[in-house]
Amino acid sequence: MNEFDLIARLTGALPTDASVIAGVGDDCAVLDVGLPDRWLLFKADAVVEGIHFMTGAKPEQVGHKALARALSDIAAMAGTPTHALITLALPSQFDVGFVEGIYRGMSALAARHAVVIVGGETTTNPDRILLSVALLGWVAKDKCVRRSGAKVGDAIFVTGELGGSLAGKHLEFEPRLPEARWLAQNFSIHSMMDLSDGLAGDLRHILKAGDVGAELLTSAIPVSRAGKARAREGNAAKPPLLAALTDGEDFELLFTVASVDAVMLLDAWKQEFPALKLSCIGKITSGSGIALRDHRGTRPLNVQGYAHFA
Amino acid sequence: MNEFDLIARLTGALPTDASVIAGVGDDCAVLDVGLPDRWLLFKADAVVEGIHFMTGAKPEQVGHKALARALSDIAAMAGTPTHALITLALPSQFDVGFVEGIYRGMSALAARHAVVIVGGETTTNPDRILLSVALLGWVAKDKCVRRSGAKVGDAIFVTGELGGSLAGKHLEFEPRLPEARWLAQNFSIHSMMDLSDGLAGDLRHILKAGDVGAELLTSAIPVSRAGKARAREGNAAKPPLLAALTDGEDFELLFTVASVDAVMLLDAWKQEFPALKLSCIGKITSGSGIALRDHRGTRPLNVQGYAHFA
Repeated sequence: MNEFDLIARLTGALPTDASVIAGVGDDCAVLDVGLPDRWLLFKADAVVEGIHFMTGAKPEQVGHKALARALSDIAAMAGTPTHALITLALPSQFDVGFVEGIYRGMSALAARHAVVIVGGETTTNPDRILLSVALLGWVAKDKCVRRSGAKVGDAIFVTGELGGSLAGKHLEFEPRLPEARWLAQNFSIHSMMDLSDGLAGDLRHILKAGDVGAELLTSAIPVSRAGKARAREGNAAKPPLLAALTDGEDFELLFTVASVDAVMLLDAWKQEFPALKLSCIGKITSGSGIALRDHRGTRPLNVQGYAHFA
Repeated sequence: MNEFDLIARLTGALPTDASVIAGVGDDCAVLDVGLPDRWLLFKADAVVEGIHFMTGAKPEQVGHKALARALSDIAAMAGTPTHALITLALPSQFDVGFVEGIYRGMSALAARHAVVIVGGETTTNPDRILLSVALLGWVAKDKCVRRSGAKVGDAIFVTGELGGSLAGKHLEFEPRLPEARWLAQNFSIHSMMDLSDGLAGDLRHILKAGDVGAELLTSAIPVSRAGKARAREGNAAKPPLLAALTDGEDFELLFTVASVDAVMLLDAWKQEFPALKLSCIGKITSGSGIALRDHRGTRPLNVQGYAHFA
């Protein structure tokens, strides 16, 4: 049983109510709390030593990553983060300097995005550090972008470059908050999410939520230098395209817009964010699943993105 | 360095803003989100296998406790909980039936208090189960009770009976949500918190926040049967009074009101909650720290409540 099956099994029967605009299965919970124009976004996420960061990581990087992951989920809905609570689970013999470094990394990132840390609990996790972040944010009701909503014919876009994040990017990535808000302000974005488990696996969530398929143009998928480097490593070799499709922790934005908007969006993006690549990697189809197209033709993609417990 | 010192060191320098009514150092963060009459309450808490529950605990109890602890913090501010996010960190070889039991325990408690579980993430914690709960709630601006606010001469009250919670109560306690709201609706409660680390330690938070002292009448402190039983155990023997003062995880309400309200409050409580004991255990003084009074006189209390990392 993998992570997604387990979540589905556990949360499938949970009751809900009219305040819940989106709950299980989207990047954040979206809540109507009685404000006329805005919804509340609510997200929790955790990083664990030995899983999400190795013992050699700098503490500032650990704190940065813990908060950045949750911020990336607020970005995925075109929201603005506001308040965070930190739960720090530590072995009983912990290094105070290391823990202070974690807070330095978190605080610096929080300050850049005007997020206030409003509480910091500590508890004991005897074997390893675990850092859990709960995050609040806002989104204008008419600008909230969900995973569902992809339409047949939509152009599929991805920011940045994919693959090889574990070589370093996963500890230092900047959540795409201003970029996502700009997209929602200026274009009708049909569906969006952030890439955490790999393009192939994550795109399937958008396809499932919209009951559609996708055709990706392999030559258009932006592979990072780190992703290409993996192809040259002897033992752990992975073709660059496969790295871009299946490596986790890219934390880039994946979104779809009507194809008539695609060229204008690309042009406007280059003006607004000249330093960040934006790639149109394919289109939404009436099928199901993902097909890859290259000069030899079209074939179904069977590989999955990274899934916990797989 | 104990838990409280560490939190103070980490959170002392964090920036804040005008939306934060209460942040670090109260039971919940209290946030002004632009609604005319209400504040948002925001809390995160975690339970860890081997620390907050032993491997033999029933899964329903584990789920119950994880949510109940956070609910108890909402109660401590006289609030109403609304939405929860669950982060479940599991060893890679986990028992699906056990995890389903955790969700059964959480869901039953959530349903009783009209709390909606709006998300359930899973992640990996290789050595033990860790369950983190993020919780939202509301409180009317004129009914929010904080830790600060205790005044010299106030009567000090505690609900239920104290001590020996680890014998079983800590896995099954019911958060005092209706009781706390009733108190705030019907009386001017000056200060309140929930008891998680033991009366002696927790009361010091109220005293520090209000810059006051307390005198407790030892004969008035309600000791539970489990607390008394500990006095009869050979090795781990602890006098019943000391158990009531220093055992953690009581999850009862500790609050103060003007002494002129004390008798009326006790009478009204007996009408409203006949099954739950309410005890006036002492008074707020102009000193600092806690003094114990019995037939032999008054002496300062030096023992601390349970503190993580102590």
